[in-house]
Amino acid sequence: MKALYFDGQLGLRDVEKPRPGADEALIQVSLAGICGTDLQITRGYAGFRGIPGHEFVGRVVECENPRWTGKRVVGEINISCGDCDLCLWGLGRHCAKRTVMGIVNRDGAFAEYVTLPTFNLHEIPDAVPDEAAVFVEPLAAAAEILEQVKVHPRLRVAVLGDGRLGLLVAQVLHQARAQVVLLGRHPWKLDLAHSWGVNVSGLSDEHLARHKFPMVVDATGSPAGLEEAFRLVAPRGTIVMKSTFHGPAQFDTARLVVDEVTLLGSRCGLFRPAIDLLAQGKVKVDQLVSRTFPLAEGVAAVDFVEKTSPLKVLLRIAAT
Amino acid sequence: MKALYFDGQLGLRDVEKPRPGADEALIQVSLAGICGTDLQITRGYAGFRGIPGHEFVGRVVECENPRWTGKRVVGEINISCGDCDLCLWGLGRHCAKRTVMGIVNRDGAFAEYVTLPTFNLHEIPDAVPDEAAVFVEPLAAAAEILEQVKVHPRLRVAVLGDGRLGLLVAQVLHQARAQVVLLGRHPWKLDLAHSWGVNVSGLSDEHLARHKFPMVVDATGSPAGLEEAFRLVAPRGTIVMKSTFHGPAQFDTARLVVDEVTLLGSRCGLFRPAIDLLAQGKVKVDQLVSRTFPLAEGVAAVDFVEKTSPLKVLLRIAAT
Repeated sequence: MKALYFDGQLGLRDVEKPRPGADEALIQVSLAGICGTDLQITRGYAGFRGIPGHEFVGRVVECENPRWTGKRVVGEINISCGDCDLCLWGLGRHCAKRTVMGIVNRDGAFAEYVTLPTFNLHEIPDAVPDEAAVFVEPLAAAAEILEQVKVHPRLRVAVLGDGRLGLLVAQVLHQARAQVVLLGRHPWKLDLAHSWGVNVSGLSDEHLARHKFPMVVDATGSPAGLEEAFRLVAPRGTIVMKSTFHGPAQFDTARLVVDEVTLLGSRCGLFRPAIDLLAQGKVKVDQLVSRTFPLAEGVAAVDFVEKTSPLKVLLRIAAT
Repeated sequence: MKALYFDGQLGLRDVEKPRPGADEALIQVSLAGICGTDLQITRGYAGFRGIPGHEFVGRVVECENPRWTGKRVVGEINISCGDCDLCLWGLGRHCAKRTVMGIVNRDGAFAEYVTLPTFNLHEIPDAVPDEAAVFVEPLAAAAEILEQVKVHPRLRVAVLGDGRLGLLVAQVLHQARAQVVLLGRHPWKLDLAHSWGVNVSGLSDEHLARHKFPMVVDATGSPAGLEEAFRLVAPRGTIVMKSTFHGPAQFDTARLVVDEVTLLGSRCGLFRPAIDLLAQGKVKVDQLVSRTFPLAEGVAAVDFVEKTSPLKVLLRIAAT
C-alpha cells in the first residue's frame, strides 16, 4: 500500500499492508488530518520512525468481530495495556506502556490502511460526514477541558491562539455556555470565530487585562502564550495549557504562588463527547478546512502546513 | 517604641508607637518569627519599606471593642478592602487592594507594638503557649493545601524540602492521614520528621521515582524543586507549589501537557484550622525553634537565619 513514511525524512513509500491482530480491525483510511504534532514528528520529535498520522476517519474492511465489519469509524489514538492501575481507572490515555498511533511506537493513518484494537473504535453516525468526522480527535482534545474543569455557564474564559485548536476550544467552551473571548493575531480566523457568536480580540489587548479571567486556555503553541496567560488570569484562577510545543518555558513562579493560580496540562480527550458535539451540530468544522491534498501529495501537504499556518489541511486517501 | 526597620538596610530604631484606627486593635507583640519572606524583604523584594514581620503572637492592649481587650491573639496578615468581588467570596487574601502586614504597604510585627483590624484577629486558647502560637501563620500556609486539594486518607504524597515549611507541610498532611514521604538534604531535619512518624528520604533518591506520586509538594524554596517535582509526579497528578523564591523557573511544558499534570500555587491559609491543629496537639512545633533572640538583637537574628539555614528563629519582644 501507499503510505507517508518518516525515517528522518518524510516520503511517500510502498509498504506492506498491515494485518490486523486478534481484537483488531483493518481500516481503510478515507481522510486524515495534519496536526501540529505531525509537524513536530517530521522535525524528529520523540524519535518516531514509521507512518505518522493520528486524525482520521475510515471504514473497517477486515475484523474478526462482525459487529465492526463495514462500519465507518474513527479511533482513539492511545493503545493502552488494559491492566495497569491507570488503565483500570479508565485513564488508558496515560498508561505508561501505551503506544500512540502515529506518535509512539505504532504506525498511523497517513496510509491507505491502518490497524487499531476494536476497543479504540467509535462508529460514526450518518449525520456526521467524513469531512467532520476527521475532526473528532482534535475536537476530543478541545473537549477534554470540560472533563478536567467544571465550566459553569457564564464563566469568563480567555482562549489564547486562533489556530486550529484554539478555534475548536473556543467553540467547545462557547457551546458549554461559557463567556468566551478568543484572542489571536489573524483577523480572518477571528472573523470566523466571531461568525459563530464567539467574542474575539487581538492578543495583548491592554483593555482585557483590566478584568482578569477566572480561566485562561493557552492554545498558542508557543512559550509566549504562558506569559500572556499569566497576564490575564485572576487570582485563584486556572490556566489550561493545551500548547504542545517542545522545549522549556519560563514563568514567574511567584505569580503562581502568590495568586494561587492553577496551571493545568490538558491533552487527549474522550471521543464520544466529541462525536456527539458534531452529530448535534454544536461545533462547526466545515469552515476549518483550508485545503485537501491527495495522499500522493502528502509531503507537499505537510510542507504547506509548515509554511503557511493554514487552518486544517486534510489528506484524501480513499473515497468511502 | 523599638522596632526593626528596613529602608534599604535593616536596623533597630526608635519609631512612633502606632495608634489603632476604628475597628483596629493595638497589640503588644510577645514573640515574632523570622521567615523566608522576611529575608527576601531585607534583600529589597517588592520594594518594601517599614517594619517587617508577619508571624507573631501578642496581647491586645488597646481596642474600642472590649471583646478584644487583654486577649492573647494572632492575626491574619492580609488586610483586604472587604468590598470587592474576591472579598465577598471570602478570598480577601487575594484582594487587589490589600495591604499585607510587614510585606505590602503596612508595618509588621518586628516591633514592640503593631495594629491590625479586629476582623483579622484570632484569640489563642490557653492550651497553646506563645511558643506554639507564633507558628500559626506558617502552619496556616501549610494547611492551605487541605483547602485547595482533596487529600484522601492513604494518598501518597512526596514533600520536597526539609526546611521550616516542608516540616510543617509534612506534618499537616501526615495528620490528614496521607502517606507522606519527606525528601530533604539535612539528616537532622529528616530525623526530626521521622520521630513524628513521617517517612523520609534523600532528595533525588532514584528508587522513589519508580512509583510516581499522585501529589508532590514543592517546599524547597528553590527553582530546582520544580524539576524534581516533575520527576516524581504521576500522570494526572498534582504538584503543589509552596516555594516563594523570586525569579523565573523553567519547566518542560510538554511533560505538563502530555501527563496532564496540575501545578497549583499555594500561599497563605486560614488561621482557624491552624490554631485547632496546635490546640489538639496534632502538629508539633516545639522542636522547630532553633534559637530565640531579643528584639534588640534582631539584625543579628536575621543574619543568623540568612547564614545558617536553621529551623525557626524567634524574636522575644515582650513577656506575656
